Amino acid sequence: MSDNVVVGLDVGGTSTRAAALCLDGERLGTGRAGGGNPTSHGAERAAAELLAALLAALADVDPTRVRAGVIGLAGAGRLLADPQGRAAFDRAWADAGLRCPYAVHGDALVAYASGTAAPDGTVLIAGTGAIAAEVRDLRLDRTADGHGWLLGDAGSGFWLGREAVRQLLSDLDRADTPGALARRVLAELTGSPEVAARPRATAETVVQAVTRRPPVELARLAPLVVTAAREGEPTALALIREAAALLAESVTRIRPAGAPEPIVLGGGLLTGDTPLADAVRAELAHRWPDAPLRTAGDGAAAAAWLAARDLPEVTDPAALHALLVPPAA
Amino acid sequence: MSDNVVVGLDVGGTSTRAAALCLDGERLGTGRAGGGNPTSHGAERAAAELLAALLAALADVDPTRVRAGVIGLAGAGRLLADPQGRAAFDRAWADAGLRCPYAVHGDALVAYASGTAAPDGTVLIAGTGAIAAEVRDLRLDRTADGHGWLLGDAGSGFWLGREAVRQLLSDLDRADTPGALARRVLAELTGSPEVAARPRATAETVVQAVTRRPPVELARLAPLVVTAAREGEPTALALIREAAALLAESVTRIRPAGAPEPIVLGGGLLTGDTPLADAVRAELAHRWPDAPLRTAGDGAAAAAWLAARDLPEVTDPAALHALLVPPAA
Repeated sequence: MSDNVVVGLDVGGTSTRAAALCLDGERLGTGRAGGGNPTSHGAERAAAELLAALLAALADVDPTRVRAGVIGLAGAGRLLADPQGRAAFDRAWADAGLRCPYAVHGDALVAYASGTAAPDGTVLIAGTGAIAAEVRDLRLDRTADGHGWLLGDAGSGFWLGREAVRQLLSDLDRADTPGALARRVLAELTGSPEVAARPRATAETVVQAVTRRPPVELARLAPLVVTAAREGEPTALALIREAAALLAESVTRIRPAGAPEPIVLGGGLLTGDTPLADAVRAELAHRWPDAPLRTAGDGAAAAAWLAARDLPEVTDPAALHALLVPPAA
Repeated sequence: MSDNVVVGLDVGGTSTRAAALCLDGERLGTGRAGGGNPTSHGAERAAAELLAALLAALADVDPTRVRAGVIGLAGAGRLLADPQGRAAFDRAWADAGLRCPYAVHGDALVAYASGTAAPDGTVLIAGTGAIAAEVRDLRLDRTADGHGWLLGDAGSGFWLGREAVRQLLSDLDRADTPGALARRVLAELTGSPEVAARPRATAETVVQAVTRRPPVELARLAPLVVTAAREGEPTALALIREAAALLAESVTRIRPAGAPEPIVLGGGLLTGDTPLADAVRAELAHRWPDAPLRTAGDGAAAAAWLAARDLPEVTDPAALHALLVPPAA
């Protein structure tokens, strides 16, 4: 058996995925564990999820055969700056039996690499939050937004959810009958789509239902906007258009007009066949007509490819990308 | 000595003010104490501030001479619905030696009454938060916005502060030299107007400086926007225009087009001679050319007037208003 094995990890807020791949493209194992973002979960917990995913991916692999590894995660820079966090990840790596070194990259770079092998380009991610990043020689260069729900994340799932509630509150203030989207938001938040005789009482119930939870949970309402937009609901369509424009605006902050490099779309709101993905593609195609638009795919495989491309025997990274990283569905 | 004395209290988030007035207009005493909003400070603490302000106002008045009182405070409805909160206010009232009944009204009604004696009209308040309210027969009727910083307060001090930081972050994302307003915001948040060699590092410092504090403290940055707008700074002027449009939009939610009743402007951002007050006046005058625009004045005196107008000997409440409530400076 060859010892040309690489491992990749894509550590996200809700799940951690691992892949062990042979350089000839054979998938030797995959693993999945809980969310492991060290910023939100703490480095120890993140390292434990990392280890669980690694052990699953390596169940049928001799870990001493692994030549290189890459971990992609949000807040990579903060982890690397924190000796304790770094030590927790080192221990998990050793506990999985791995003897090779590993590199840590931002999740945005891994998302980018899951959509293209091009060394230069742009990645735009919209899930709970939103960020755009310029990639130069497969390193994250400048980024735009990603500033969090209070100050940024324009056009994200949080933004869509918050704006949907704001539209509902506007309807209630005006004593207008809430529209179809507003009724769904109302039912989701209060358990009923009915408005009280005093609409202000309903508005207060809505505000209390939202403020009882962490603000970021407003992103839970984003799927209601997506579903309503699919059905042509006017308020939802307007919010989707505005979100797409905001996301494209974030890209303009870091990407020159007319640049021909690829743009990769990532995050839950842009990787599916969603109205927001369609609207963002239209915005981007309008501003960068020469840029290929790609969709992020298997992050763990992309991380493994990022690890592999530094091995001395890899002379054609793009060909290896075609072997290792399945195209997005 | 007559026993035609009334007392009024204006309980705000940062201060509590009390006034004891004779029906002939004589000011018998005033008092001031700390912030007493029962929603943010708790009813016991609010009642203690209330008592301190009352005792100061009644220092030279026999409290048994007082015929009626009104307390204006934010979250009045919540206080009245809470037996413990109501009991704390009852105790403070009795501890001040007062034997007469008192009524509790929302701070928006008191702000309205400090600007006009007209029984019907609209009040628009912008301070840390923002709310518009319709007044019918000197009762708060429908309200618009006032939904708090997470979901509302469009055009408020919080909104101005947040948008000023967002503009700064946009400059940093673009690696543009921050404008004059952005530099002031940067200096206020980080202690220095200098941008690091990697502007992203400065952006992260800014986000951390904001997220270390309660979100509502973004309103502390609003005076920077107001000052920069006074000096003609373009970003600040644009934010002021947008805030004024948002505040006027809140009014349209509850006020019919062309209505001739007065509109009272209240709250720290609209009562001074500020660029935002000017911009809001222009927006409102455009939409309601027949409506007198007034400015909120002495809330404690207005509360005392609200108490007095229900006394049987008061036959001309408007004339009494002219006696009791000094016009805004």
